[in-house]
Amino acid sequence: MKNFIYDIPTRILFGSGQISNIGVEVKKHASKILLIYGKNSIKKSGLYDEVIKYLNLESIEIIELAGVDPNPRIETVRIGADLCRKHNLELVLAVGGGSTIDCAKAIAAQAKYHGDIWNDIYVEKRYENLKEALPVASVLTLAATGSEMNGNSVISNMKENLKLGMGHYILRPVFSILDPTYTFSVSKYQTASGVVDIMSHIFEQYFSPDKNGFLQSRIMEGLLKTVIYYGPIAFENPTDYEARANIMWTGSLALNGLTSLGKESTDWATHQMEHELSAKYDITHGIGLGILTPFWMEYVLDTTNVHRFVDYANNVWGISGDNDFDVARIAIHKTREFFNSLDIPVTLTDIGIDSSKFEDMASGVTKNGPIGCMKKLDYKDVLEIYTLAL
Amino acid sequence: MKNFIYDIPTRILFGSGQISNIGVEVKKHASKILLIYGKNSIKKSGLYDEVIKYLNLESIEIIELAGVDPNPRIETVRIGADLCRKHNLELVLAVGGGSTIDCAKAIAAQAKYHGDIWNDIYVEKRYENLKEALPVASVLTLAATGSEMNGNSVISNMKENLKLGMGHYILRPVFSILDPTYTFSVSKYQTASGVVDIMSHIFEQYFSPDKNGFLQSRIMEGLLKTVIYYGPIAFENPTDYEARANIMWTGSLALNGLTSLGKESTDWATHQMEHELSAKYDITHGIGLGILTPFWMEYVLDTTNVHRFVDYANNVWGISGDNDFDVARIAIHKTREFFNSLDIPVTLTDIGIDSSKFEDMASGVTKNGPIGCMKKLDYKDVLEIYTLAL
Repeated sequence: MKNFIYDIPTRILFGSGQISNIGVEVKKHASKILLIYGKNSIKKSGLYDEVIKYLNLESIEIIELAGVDPNPRIETVRIGADLCRKHNLELVLAVGGGSTIDCAKAIAAQAKYHGDIWNDIYVEKRYENLKEALPVASVLTLAATGSEMNGNSVISNMKENLKLGMGHYILRPVFSILDPTYTFSVSKYQTASGVVDIMSHIFEQYFSPDKNGFLQSRIMEGLLKTVIYYGPIAFENPTDYEARANIMWTGSLALNGLTSLGKESTDWATHQMEHELSAKYDITHGIGLGILTPFWMEYVLDTTNVHRFVDYANNVWGISGDNDFDVARIAIHKTREFFNSLDIPVTLTDIGIDSSKFEDMASGVTKNGPIGCMKKLDYKDVLEIYTLAL
Repeated sequence: MKNFIYDIPTRILFGSGQISNIGVEVKKHASKILLIYGKNSIKKSGLYDEVIKYLNLESIEIIELAGVDPNPRIETVRIGADLCRKHNLELVLAVGGGSTIDCAKAIAAQAKYHGDIWNDIYVEKRYENLKEALPVASVLTLAATGSEMNGNSVISNMKENLKLGMGHYILRPVFSILDPTYTFSVSKYQTASGVVDIMSHIFEQYFSPDKNGFLQSRIMEGLLKTVIYYGPIAFENPTDYEARANIMWTGSLALNGLTSLGKESTDWATHQMEHELSAKYDITHGIGLGILTPFWMEYVLDTTNVHRFVDYANNVWGISGDNDFDVARIAIHKTREFFNSLDIPVTLTDIGIDSSKFEDMASGVTKNGPIGCMKKLDYKDVLEIYTLAL
């Protein structure tokens, strides 16, 4: 096991009705806040009114920024940071899914940062320059990204055709409210996409060629079994509380450090390939991941890493057999079949993407060198995977 | 899933050599501390010198309290608390196993408490009275209790023949250093006892009759598989780093809240029965648990809870079959066999305990009513389990 520091300070208030604590929780950190959210869904659902009611009870002053996009834009970040500075706001509260929370983190960082956060941190990764940020908090309405319990943030710059991620410990939310009932109204399409996103986060950490990380792998198999069990239930019956709760909490645990800390290596090639896709085509992240993942698995599978696929087959799908490669391929087939059972498209062609930008995308993905650890992927490999996924 | 608040603030510095950070970590909280430890083992191993060296580098003033017992005594707690008050100490640092850390927590609480912590908190459970405590930190030398990452503390009062536990969130360590190499010198006997203790913590949370807690159960199965895999390796080869590391980190995760939060119910009957045993006979906690657990499993198994045993059999031991009770019994047999492979005695007779105090112990265990949730155990049940374990 590799040395690590485990330090996850986000306080999670989990369960139905936890919103009634939001005023008290915010008050511990701030009396003037920026409230950000997406389009109209939180107003339609009544969540907006609840948030405002409990913030008012604690006399929290609120400045609002609505209309955060699903792939949040750097322009929104700049507007939010200007509001924080202008009004001396003390905390950024995101009400929404991962995109809104990611945007809140970028705003919280930019509000306290003298340079340009996009250039310095998202592009150049000069993390040492990021010394402070406003506290961030969240009310989660979509189980997917895990952003509610980590310091990661993915922001898009459509002018530059770039979607880039960064992660910094000072951006971990101080608290997050996870009420599974808020996800009852999430569409089948977004539910499926969230399930795939959660599974992909686990795959990116699970699939590494080293034989290390026994405990982490066993925990991840438990998380995978949970979403595989409850994903179809939530898909069929959107108001099944137990299904929504299990998926929601799994989403947080899948990317808060629990499953990667101590591991020698993690992969993340599929995420990098998908970020290029959704930067170019503005598609839903989970859909892109659902298409690319099985092709990536088939492409990287070889004698150096087949043992990981065998673990996955045995411990997640209950598949065993004499020939490791056969077992691995059946597990990959099961994965694609599972995604497909949630109406996730199988190929890029299915979502109207052709090969015209593949070379451009493969260049973008590998511009800093090969990616991934299961198999190091260079330009040619990435191009091949995009092409296989057609 | 039940509503819960997840809030685990303990910072874990995991891995070989992390001790070099102890001065800096302590300095964040205190400049004058109480250092407590057990007998001579940390002096023999050189750990004591390392701790002092790095504390000195940060000019931390140190008052020492040595000789904490394996079942820590309330008398030691009182001495420690007096030292803290007399010297205005600002943090209690435990270097040792769970007993030392438990003792540190009791000292940290008593130092800031005007009444008698034993009576008010351990006996009467008036938790609302416990409003503040000195910060606690730890350097762990034995993987077992999980005390390094939770607010629990078990203290013995030999005069009253009582061993009682309590838990309070203000007693969670601010940081803990987990260096697996410190457990290289742990004897086979203590290694086995620690493994059983960790497994028992998981069993107490895993075995509940409700069908809830899917995610928590899958995580716990992963933790069980980890100690079942690495326990025998550490037992045979005490300096196997990977084995020691996996066991150590599993021990912390098994009792920090991760596996119980959100669950409808947990059991803890076996722990209560064992606490009576070790209060009366001063035996090693893990040994008592190792003897009692399989007898408890056999006794509580019935139609209302057999599904949990079947999950355990399928997912931890890879045992399946047509008859649920047969499957359950094979899994229980496997459990006893596993403990026995680590030289854990099978019966109370094996460790020289006869039935003379059984009635007294059964009364003590059930003095506040029936215990457990897999099956509610009253006086007669507890007496029967002790008798079966003869």
